[in-house]
Amino acid sequence: MAHIELGVDETEFPGITGPMRFRPETAKPLNELAEVLLRAPHSLPAGERELIAAYVSGLNECTFCCSSHSAFAAAQLDAGMSLVDQVRTDLETAPVSDKLRALLRIAAVVREDGRKVTTELVAAARMEGATDVEIHDTVLIAAAFCMFNRYVDGLGTLAPDNPDRYAQSARRIVDQGYIGSV
Amino acid sequence: MAHIELGVDETEFPGITGPMRFRPETAKPLNELAEVLLRAPHSLPAGERELIAAYVSGLNECTFCCSSHSAFAAAQLDAGMSLVDQVRTDLETAPVSDKLRALLRIAAVVREDGRKVTTELVAAARMEGATDVEIHDTVLIAAAFCMFNRYVDGLGTLAPDNPDRYAQSARRIVDQGYIGSV
Repeated sequence: MAHIELGVDETEFPGITGPMRFRPETAKPLNELAEVLLRAPHSLPAGERELIAAYVSGLNECTFCCSSHSAFAAAQLDAGMSLVDQVRTDLETAPVSDKLRALLRIAAVVREDGRKVTTELVAAARMEGATDVEIHDTVLIAAAFCMFNRYVDGLGTLAPDNPDRYAQSARRIVDQGYIGSV
Repeated sequence: MAHIELGVDETEFPGITGPMRFRPETAKPLNELAEVLLRAPHSLPAGERELIAAYVSGLNECTFCCSSHSAFAAAQLDAGMSLVDQVRTDLETAPVSDKLRALLRIAAVVREDGRKVTTELVAAARMEGATDVEIHDTVLIAAAFCMFNRYVDGLGTLAPDNPDRYAQSARRIVDQGYIGSV
């Protein structure tokens, strides 16, 4: 049970959806940020941006966010959940492009501490063809999930066990996006 | 120098202001989130909410955010920078209300890992009169600064040494708010 009275049935509104119903004033910019970072037109496909979110949430051990964004990534990547699992298990051997691997390495470091991002890590991503916007957005996606993960877990919200719940949310997000989807 | 080409003179647009000019699409929800959390009408005074932001940013050792939000807090608290310094030096002996102290303890734990927030910490804040919205917003302010700090440092932005620069920004934020102030 969440640490505060969210005013919703948590089995119906698990994870971040409860706090978003509780406080629509903060839900609005949070959903807009997710929409711009993860779904707006971009040189990085939505599935790859969701994979960055899932990867960071997995490293933060946030069950709700990791399960959600893994499902959202899987729904938008040709290789589906098997690729998400491979990245989460061993980034170095996972069959992703060298550019995406270099960006995911930056995301992992941002998660630990922004100050650990080196010019070498950024140069390596650029060498694989990453643009400044892609590097910027990778840093901000990783940073944003350090927020979302702490928000969801800091309020002690419920993370459903049933994978169908996350697959169902994935269909909603892919169809309708983050804004107004909660 | 920042890790990416921000297209601005960093001495003029230091810290988060460079990336916000570089990517206005993400700046918009980020500024709206800051405005709702730190400045919108609230049972916690703006100075106390800025103090939570400064405290978390100090624990994350993010020079730009800590200097900025310390100045923003100082500008809106009767006891000014001396109180901000006392809280940052030793929360347990700083002359703040027991409610604010309990909320700052929650913020410090969220910064480490959301899963570390206990029912005891939340009950202690509630015992001192904290409402569910105040607890929610404390968790989200702490989580949000785990994002802002990583964003600013992960891109390797400049943090001015001169305290006057932060005091100047404080006057602008207090006058105009976060939206459209960058």
